[in-house]
Amino acid sequence: MPARLIDCLATDDEFSEIFSDDAVLGEMLRFEVALARSQSRLGLIPEAAAEAIARCAEGLDAAPISREARQSATVVIPFVKALTAKVEAADPASAGCVHLGATSQDVIDSALVLCLRRARDHMAAHHVQLSASLRGLAEQHADTVMLTRTLLQPAPPTTFGYKAASWQASVERSWESLTHAFDEAIQLQFGGASGTLASYGIDGLALSETLAKELELPLPAAPWHSHRDRLAALVAACGVFTGTLAKIARDISLLMQPEIGELSEFGGGSSAMPNKRNPAGSTLVLAAAVRVPGLVASFLSGMVQENERAAGGWQAEWPTVSDVVQSTGSALATMRRVAISLNVDTARMRDNIDATGESVFAERAAMLLARSMGRTKAQDKVAEMLKAGALREVTPDIAEPEAYLGSAEQFRRRLLGLM
Amino acid sequence: MPARLIDCLATDDEFSEIFSDDAVLGEMLRFEVALARSQSRLGLIPEAAAEAIARCAEGLDAAPISREARQSATVVIPFVKALTAKVEAADPASAGCVHLGATSQDVIDSALVLCLRRARDHMAAHHVQLSASLRGLAEQHADTVMLTRTLLQPAPPTTFGYKAASWQASVERSWESLTHAFDEAIQLQFGGASGTLASYGIDGLALSETLAKELELPLPAAPWHSHRDRLAALVAACGVFTGTLAKIARDISLLMQPEIGELSEFGGGSSAMPNKRNPAGSTLVLAAAVRVPGLVASFLSGMVQENERAAGGWQAEWPTVSDVVQSTGSALATMRRVAISLNVDTARMRDNIDATGESVFAERAAMLLARSMGRTKAQDKVAEMLKAGALREVTPDIAEPEAYLGSAEQFRRRLLGLM
Amino acid sequence: MPARLIDCLATDDEFSEIFSDDAVLGEMLRFEVALARSQSRLGLIPEAAAEAIARCAEGLDAAPISREARQSATVVIPFVKALTAKVEAADPASAGCVHLGATSQDVIDSALVLCLRRARDHMAAHHVQLSASLRGLAEQHADTVMLTRTLLQPAPPTTFGYKAASWQASVERSWESLTHAFDEAIQLQFGGASGTLASYGIDGLALSETLAKELELPLPAAPWHSHRDRLAALVAACGVFTGTLAKIARDISLLMQPEIGELSEFGGGSSAMPNKRNPAGSTLVLAAAVRVPGLVASFLSGMVQENERAAGGWQAEWPTVSDVVQSTGSALATMRRVAISLNVDTARMRDNIDATGESVFAERAAMLLARSMGRTKAQDKVAEMLKAGALREVTPDIAEPEAYLGSAEQFRRRLLGLM
Amino acid sequence: MPARLIDCLATDDEFSEIFSDDAVLGEMLRFEVALARSQSRLGLIPEAAAEAIARCAEGLDAAPISREARQSATVVIPFVKALTAKVEAADPASAGCVHLGATSQDVIDSALVLCLRRARDHMAAHHVQLSASLRGLAEQHADTVMLTRTLLQPAPPTTFGYKAASWQASVERSWESLTHAFDEAIQLQFGGASGTLASYGIDGLALSETLAKELELPLPAAPWHSHRDRLAALVAACGVFTGTLAKIARDISLLMQPEIGELSEFGGGSSAMPNKRNPAGSTLVLAAAVRVPGLVASFLSGMVQENERAAGGWQAEWPTVSDVVQSTGSALATMRRVAISLNVDTARMRDNIDATGESVFAERAAMLLARSMGRTKAQDKVAEMLKAGALREVTPDIAEPEAYLGSAEQFRRRLLGLM
Repeated sequence: MPARLIDCLATDDEFSEIFSDDAVLGEMLRFEVALARSQSRLGLIPEAAAEAIARCAEGLDAAPISREARQSATVVIPFVKALTAKVEAADPASAGCVHLGATSQDVIDSALVLCLRRARDHMAAHHVQLSASLRGLAEQHADTVMLTRTLLQPAPPTTFGYKAASWQASVERSWESLTHAFDEAIQLQFGGASGTLASYGIDGLALSETLAKELELPLPAAPWHSHRDRLAALVAACGVFTGTLAKIARDISLLMQPEIGELSEFGGGSSAMPNKRNPAGSTLVLAAAVRVPGLVASFLSGMVQENERAAGGWQAEWPTVSDVVQSTGSALATMRRVAISLNVDTARMRDNIDATGESVFAERAAMLLARSMGRTKAQDKVAEMLKAGALREVTPDIAEPEAYLGSAEQFRRRLLGLM
Repeated sequence: MPARLIDCLATDDEFSEIFSDDAVLGEMLRFEVALARSQSRLGLIPEAAAEAIARCAEGLDAAPISREARQSATVVIPFVKALTAKVEAADPASAGCVHLGATSQDVIDSALVLCLRRARDHMAAHHVQLSASLRGLAEQHADTVMLTRTLLQPAPPTTFGYKAASWQASVERSWESLTHAFDEAIQLQFGGASGTLASYGIDGLALSETLAKELELPLPAAPWHSHRDRLAALVAACGVFTGTLAKIARDISLLMQPEIGELSEFGGGSSAMPNKRNPAGSTLVLAAAVRVPGLVASFLSGMVQENERAAGGWQAEWPTVSDVVQSTGSALATMRRVAISLNVDTARMRDNIDATGESVFAERAAMLLARSMGRTKAQDKVAEMLKAGALREVTPDIAEPEAYLGSAEQFRRRLLGLM
Repeated sequence: MPARLIDCLATDDEFSEIFSDDAVLGEMLRFEVALARSQSRLGLIPEAAAEAIARCAEGLDAAPISREARQSATVVIPFVKALTAKVEAADPASAGCVHLGATSQDVIDSALVLCLRRARDHMAAHHVQLSASLRGLAEQHADTVMLTRTLLQPAPPTTFGYKAASWQASVERSWESLTHAFDEAIQLQFGGASGTLASYGIDGLALSETLAKELELPLPAAPWHSHRDRLAALVAACGVFTGTLAKIARDISLLMQPEIGELSEFGGGSSAMPNKRNPAGSTLVLAAAVRVPGLVASFLSGMVQENERAAGGWQAEWPTVSDVVQSTGSALATMRRVAISLNVDTARMRDNIDATGESVFAERAAMLLARSMGRTKAQDKVAEMLKAGALREVTPDIAEPEAYLGSAEQFRRRLLGLM
Repeated sequence: MPARLIDCLATDDEFSEIFSDDAVLGEMLRFEVALARSQSRLGLIPEAAAEAIARCAEGLDAAPISREARQSATVVIPFVKALTAKVEAADPASAGCVHLGATSQDVIDSALVLCLRRARDHMAAHHVQLSASLRGLAEQHADTVMLTRTLLQPAPPTTFGYKAASWQASVERSWESLTHAFDEAIQLQFGGASGTLASYGIDGLALSETLAKELELPLPAAPWHSHRDRLAALVAACGVFTGTLAKIARDISLLMQPEIGELSEFGGGSSAMPNKRNPAGSTLVLAAAVRVPGLVASFLSGMVQENERAAGGWQAEWPTVSDVVQSTGSALATMRRVAISLNVDTARMRDNIDATGESVFAERAAMLLARSMGRTKAQDKVAEMLKAGALREVTPDIAEPEAYLGSAEQFRRRLLGLM
């Protein structure tokens, strides 16, 4: 099931697949099978029933489940009905053991975290390569001098190595938070109708432990059916991570303007202009950062859930989590491609510095003069000398941008953990 | 193409279909055919070419288009390539006439508004029925006395007819705004590479007029490729409309609590508790109102588009508009079902008033006393008399809730346009 | 009461004042005075009481009211207590007539719309001037040729007049929506404890009419205490308007990059770099557009209000509406200054076209060739000729950008209503 | 400077004060003094200059700074001008040493984190007490049986102790994340005009270390002027924390409905109804959760900052961070009061269970029957027996709710860390 066309700039086949009907149904069935097996292991149902359920746990048709779900505001009722019907047909005696004692939310939430576990692994693979590419740029360009730009205006020079190291470090930080949030959120949900597992009598906790082991999921202290903080933290961490990626994409798209021309990415063509090379990858990442913050807000709004199961807040989660993870994951995959393909035009960087004339030294000149004549007069004086092209008289020691990099190299090394 | 399972509580088959691959590709092809025919009509391309394009305008495979779109950050490049290949195979001489002089955004935006036109028509049909149901309740229950509730606490009585009239009027107001926003937003986008239609020389405006007629779309004063205010207003109006629907859903879900039991909707069962009747319809509408506000924010954030075509803001629009319209449309369809099925327990309404004892008259009593003894003392006195069960001594004239409805009936009639 | 320092880039003194303690208290007092006078006019309270209240309606201290409000989740309880105390001191017999029969929401909502009325008038004044400035640019620069830029890359030429006309028209459209939303939202709220005005017996509607006249506010069909669609539509229209302003600010800030240098606004200095001229005005407008979309989402989320008065959704409105209106209003005032001060460097615009070489004609060349050799080959051919600097051979007729403007002038005139 | 009236339900005096003009100016001045002293320690400016600056670092007037800030889109220019003027007047020779080599963002961001440090400490104090109160409830009510409620409908019983333990654990988790986010975000920002500290030559890093020590702030690996991930993570953690608090507030406000009457908080009166007791505290917390998610989205949107200093995204941060922290902090303080004052009506809890009749055992009965007769038939059978009031025949072992609590006690103990 590929991405829908209408969504194709907000996801890709890889991350769309994780939330495809087959994948989601697969994880729901995996839960039911694991539940049955766990129950059989504890003697709550016959082993034959568990195996009958396991054999029937495939080939469900998503379309009618999706449609009927709107009757009860949960996909689990038609899903359990469909699974039960299959078991009934294959082994009538076992049909009563399907989904025994569980509730909608156990299936839905556990299936969701199983999907999230897959998403995390996919993201991790992209992250490693993105991080390595950025680090490579940071190492390679320690001596590549370029302008900084503040409020879109040229400012004193830096090195591209320092800039890339800043990118890399922010990606590492955001990823560390995100991966921590994944680890916290990926936990079994199993509480039965009201979070007490009461229908299992005294076996609830033992069954929880067995089921968690079966699904290779951590078992939390208690069910989390109406406490969504861990999921919220994950969604929010996706938001921060996407923002971090998009900051880099913003820089690249700006520095790829032909009038600046310092960086370029793989790019993409135009349907109208054959010669044009657009920052296509950066654009997709920027689009993700337009989209995700609102989705984070949607999730946070939904946290205010009523008692033991929400009427609204919970039901809004699936599409939101899925959209956020797809947007973040596909943005990450794209940014990886952008970083690998990034072309650095060091000559153009130098030319752009030269084109600013002496103004690049104005800050330093103003500071030197300020000590003797005060800040205001110094700034006026600098402005005047800039007009006259005579600023180097004040700052002969910094006649070259290489001599005006301050602590850039130290910061670069600190960011890379080299000092 | 039914709704994806993961999204099935945020859309339904009807509204999902409007943004399905087939539907979206269909509208994109409709644009290309209309463009070719318009050009042939003006003598810009041979009629045979237009007809060749028209014959080939079907059966494209969305999956590879969706996939390749991420290379160029636009679906139009692979789409035009695929269509051109079909024309090339059928009539090589006409292949050069595909998409001639148009740009990505012309296709994308025009296809989007064509989808929106369909969405509007579907919504309109549901709206008529929802509005009629609510009006029916408002007319039928002019004399049904019930408690109001403020901050979830019982307050002086009203009539359910007035309450339903308030619902109906808010739905009418929000719908009027939404339908106006649809009408404003549904306009042809046609500007070529940079919004000037330069590649058509002096024929641009004539071609625009012909194309608009062909697609039965209004022609705006100029292309709107980077001015998204009309689309933003539509998305925002969906947000307001969903909020209006969800306010009603909130009321119903609260009044359907068994401890209150004044209203109930069709409801849905529980996967664990056979006897339970959940406010399933209201829950779906509430879920939409959790989800949509953030999506509105996403769209508004994307309005800040760079010059003649954005790098990010525009590319984020398709999935956001589609999600908002699906959420709003499916919420509307569901609320229609809720309203039609709404069961009003007038006896329970009366019982709940009685259960509050005399406290329902406290406001009036306090007001009567305040004139003579001042506000603070009056409030203390009322509290004391309430404890003693002696409040009616102060307010004998309002011994019955029917006598304490103030202007409820007038407001009901004004809302329904009856006075 | 000037803007708080921490908020000063999100508001200005003019719009901050509208929501200052004095202004808000003033409007609340105005409501109470008008209520008392209306009641006296209908014989519900003595005229002397109304006049006593009017005399006492000033000089309340906001700080303790603000503090105590958190006890009851409404400012009205401490406010009425404070006002009553003043009346009690001045004329004990009239104290009981303060706020008689009204509820918190009547004061709060009506005071809010009175503040909004002032905000609208302030905005209208700025809008007129902004619109005139933009129109002036559109009229003056009909022949000023410049590049368009799509995805931040140069694209075929347009005129600055057409660009400015697009700005102006979008501002006009968004303003028209906003002013309509203001007009809808600015209505009296008056419903008493539960929206029925029951404590006034049969006099509720007559009192409403008198009060509305007194406050010069339209009287809606019924109170709107828990139906917030009109206010939501206003907040959303502010969001769209801010987005429209910020799109212009984005363009200006990009075209003010020294490497492009086509536009510049008044700008502002830097605390570190004396020679720098930042797009300060545009930056403030862009900041507003970062901030407002989320606030719109907050408001929309709050629409889902419980029965006759919300527990949460309503109480979240005041700061949100106030923040949105201040951000929008101050952004508008700033954009007015930007537009007035805008400097257009027509020579630089021409230079930038020339710097792109022949590539500006690539779209047209590809289109001309496509008819004969098909789209793909044509695009390859154009790319090849561009490299060789030989593109004009294909497009001799469009050797000058002035000859390649298509319908730009027609669109400009249509946008300005000149054809 | 108390909270503005218009904002008083979204903040309180305690948290408003942290972002008051005096407090913000105070932290900005603290930065300038620390900078001067650090420079003097390294011999970059005379010790006398540092002391002159320290002596002048008070009594600035915020109003004109706030006003002029809109000229340059930064408060630092008028702020430094005002401070310089004071130093000039007191010790002209030292005036040139004010703000030497620093940039706007160094002051703004460092002052912000100094404010955040104070906010964290205030929150921590409230958190300790809230957590203790909730833990107390969890410990005290291990045996208090009550209904659960799912989708606002009664469901099988639990204990209030388990419910309160779930609250407490979620608060602990969210607080741990929040406090971690505070610790990450509270770091010195010091980078000079372009993040290289170039104007200090080779002394930048040493000066950074001295300055960080002076301000008792951690020194990050490098300046973070355009990488806002740590601040974003803090804002997002506030969003999650507020959501966690509001989930508890939602539960309390629902259980405080008189028709349910199981819990009640301190509450507040009504301006119209003397006898009414509203869930005033919960309402304020719910209002915060309506407001904050959108603000989180605003912050995340602003992360996409241009190169070395943003035009828009950065300038939008101050008011957003301040609003989020004030909303979260005041909600926390209020929830602490709610928890301390929470009244638990155990008798009413029991009555409400009894009122549901046997339906409380339906889940268990259905499960028992399902094994023998299959799921669907079992559910039909249960429904039928419920109608006949004969359900206990199937489930004699769970005739009492106390016998139907499953693992509630184990979960309670696990959440409290007791097993």
